Amino acid sequence: MAAQIPSTHVDILQKKAFANFATVNADGVPHVTPVWVDWDGTHVLVNTARGRVKDRNLQQNPRVALAIADPENPYRYLGIQGRVAAMTEDGAEAHIDKMAKKYMGKDKYPYRAPGEKRVLIKIQPEKVHVVG
Amino acid sequence: MAAQIPSTHVDILQKKAFANFATVNADGVPHVTPVWVDWDGTHVLVNTARGRVKDRNLQQNPRVALAIADPENPYRYLGIQGRVAAMTEDGAEAHIDKMAKKYMGKDKYPYRAPGEKRVLIKIQPEKVHVVG
Repeated sequence: MAAQIPSTHVDILQKKAFANFATVNADGVPHVTPVWVDWDGTHVLVNTARGRVKDRNLQQNPRVALAIADPENPYRYLGIQGRVAAMTEDGAEAHIDKMAKKYMGKDKYPYRAPGEKRVLIKIQPEKVHVVG
Repeated sequence: MAAQIPSTHVDILQKKAFANFATVNADGVPHVTPVWVDWDGTHVLVNTARGRVKDRNLQQNPRVALAIADPENPYRYLGIQGRVAAMTEDGAEAHIDKMAKKYMGKDKYPYRAPGEKRVLIKIQPEKVHVVG
């Protein structure tokens, strides 16, 4: 079921593009928010915090969808449907700093809340479509 | 359960902003794509075509979510969760032309496919959050 990100559109994941990340709760209610996004060559990576809607929804239902537009051209985008392959606190703090570097040019993520536990979500793409 | 769009952020719906529109199929699998978006003062309006994933999903599950960023500032956005109040072909052709005017400056939507039936989706917001 694993799908590849086409090499023609992988650049979108390397730009400062926002992923519109959709999850679903146990009652079938979707939730979508823009998030920073990363790519390790196999998985799409999203960083969240324990207790947020995304974290709670994914404990119940591991299916996700993302729409990621090229920041330079909103008519060029990647649509991904996939499944959570792993959710872990291991490496999640270092990863949010990496995201702060990518998106803000900062060495440390500046918005940590007291007591917040970051969670790294690794997503296996299962269906990918590209437009533009 | 109806929620209002805060007057501080209603401008986002009036700009050429894309709504990242999430629906869910009968198996709980989310789908999200960027779409043109309109606002009638009560409902968020999205125009699709019969037979597409969005149309099929909404026949099974009327719950939706949208994330709509300000095209001038990706850190300013509207997040909406809601429910389909109506889905109709009535007025849907005129409405896609209105959207072509808003987003492309064209009087007629230029991408009609042979046999395509447009569908106007009227969404009642139930939860709204704003960032930025």
